[in-house]
Amino acid sequence: MVLDQGWFTETASEVGTAFSLRINDRLHVETSEYQTIEVYDTDTFGRLMVIDGFIMLTDRDNFVYHEMMTHPALFAHGSPRDVAIIGGGDCGSLREVLKHEGVARATQIEIDERVTRVAEQFFPALCSANDDPRAELAFADGIAWMANRDPESLDVIIVDSTDPIGPAEGLFNEPFYRSCLAALRPAGLLVQQSESPLAHTRLICDMHAAMRRAGFADSHVLSFPQPVYPTGWWSATMAAKSDGALQAPTHVAGLETHYYTPAIHQAAFAQPAFLARALQQTLDTDQK
Amino acid sequence: MVLDQGWFTETASEVGTAFSLRINDRLHVETSEYQTIEVYDTDTFGRLMVIDGFIMLTDRDNFVYHEMMTHPALFAHGSPRDVAIIGGGDCGSLREVLKHEGVARATQIEIDERVTRVAEQFFPALCSANDDPRAELAFADGIAWMANRDPESLDVIIVDSTDPIGPAEGLFNEPFYRSCLAALRPAGLLVQQSESPLAHTRLICDMHAAMRRAGFADSHVLSFPQPVYPTGWWSATMAAKSDGALQAPTHVAGLETHYYTPAIHQAAFAQPAFLARALQQTLDTDQK
Repeated sequence: MVLDQGWFTETASEVGTAFSLRINDRLHVETSEYQTIEVYDTDTFGRLMVIDGFIMLTDRDNFVYHEMMTHPALFAHGSPRDVAIIGGGDCGSLREVLKHEGVARATQIEIDERVTRVAEQFFPALCSANDDPRAELAFADGIAWMANRDPESLDVIIVDSTDPIGPAEGLFNEPFYRSCLAALRPAGLLVQQSESPLAHTRLICDMHAAMRRAGFADSHVLSFPQPVYPTGWWSATMAAKSDGALQAPTHVAGLETHYYTPAIHQAAFAQPAFLARALQQTLDTDQK
Repeated sequence: MVLDQGWFTETASEVGTAFSLRINDRLHVETSEYQTIEVYDTDTFGRLMVIDGFIMLTDRDNFVYHEMMTHPALFAHGSPRDVAIIGGGDCGSLREVLKHEGVARATQIEIDERVTRVAEQFFPALCSANDDPRAELAFADGIAWMANRDPESLDVIIVDSTDPIGPAEGLFNEPFYRSCLAALRPAGLLVQQSESPLAHTRLICDMHAAMRRAGFADSHVLSFPQPVYPTGWWSATMAAKSDGALQAPTHVAGLETHYYTPAIHQAAFAQPAFLARALQQTLDTDQK
């Protein structure tokens, strides 16, 4: 089988898989200070954003990712006022955060302004909350930004980054998690995209161990489907500054969502048997 | 991006996607009375079985599918003695069913004996329960087999078929569901693979409507990841002959599993918001 003209293909070399979308046209390409950004018009998934050859999102299925990166953490917290989004340049997470009326300020810290400008042009629905007076768009390095926060000034931190290679590498380690912990109020939560439960089990375990070493009291994996990412099976990792903070939501407002529901929130916390075993083994070893 | 030598690619034309696995070698190919069966040695997913160009399973990720096609239905039933598997020629579902000690007889009705013989040769782990005295391997047409059952002679029916095109088409309609209903005891359950919640929403809704019209009292979607199937997001549909039978499991034995846990069982029933709305609309319309 040969795929060439008419398809965009992302090869996940380390996973041994490739995923392709049938495309009609490439709408945009540019090389920013940080990376190459492309936009395609696909046949069945709407528009597609690609960075350095890796699929970032499509119109059709980004709702799962953006809803699961935001609503579980915001509802689990219960009364978040100050929210920071590290990365998230497509503004989809920002839009979901601002559906929560109690949020007073949502700051998006994206290193590459061009990602946001491209999203504004080609994915206007994702950027529909950018003009909300509670939204602040900062274009800066998220690691430095977090290190300079006032202590206990944030309620929820959402790390909506690319894979842990290149610019995002420094967002997956203990020093960054220490900055996050210091910036969070006592009931604060951190949620970070954490790759595929099947293909990146080791990374997930390492993230949890690093979060605990940094001082987070608790951490859990949330699993959800994401068809355009390798294996189609993705996760977020949620960590709580204080014991008991990671409870089920006591109150879920009637947001308009396509994937998230209170039952989905609970369901996402269910850990596949192999992942529960791997995590337990990692944390047991780390505590010795 | 061109994929050719060194990759096996399945194109899901109607979904507008393609999925590829890096391969080392093709180990087997044959054309049986019904279809062309291939086996590949992949680089990272173990062995791969392909039928008529469609990926059936790999060593690495079939555990999710086989566990979710069997354990939720068997545990929800609570005390299944007689189980039938329609299709399932790779014997992976049979193996999971026979982990339940209370099962007295598990009959696998696969139309193409060659699928089972190829599985025995190339996927011996999946066939490890074939010699269990409670296992019966029948090579026959599942539709006719089910139509000839004694009334109320089965506790759980598992329809582990290929896509609803070709030989499996007749397994996705009201006449077949009526045969299943008649063959089930009053507390009986039917579970059937039901494709991708994202890509095949319409099919899932049609299946539920047909099951209800056939007389099933209740039906639910179970969602789970399945990396090698289109969108990586798959489902089973479970239907109960009697009201109230589809409750949560009251008793879960300590089976050795890689994906299934009691929490995963509950979680699989959580319906994505868009799917819940589509199903409700279908069933409301159908009842008018």
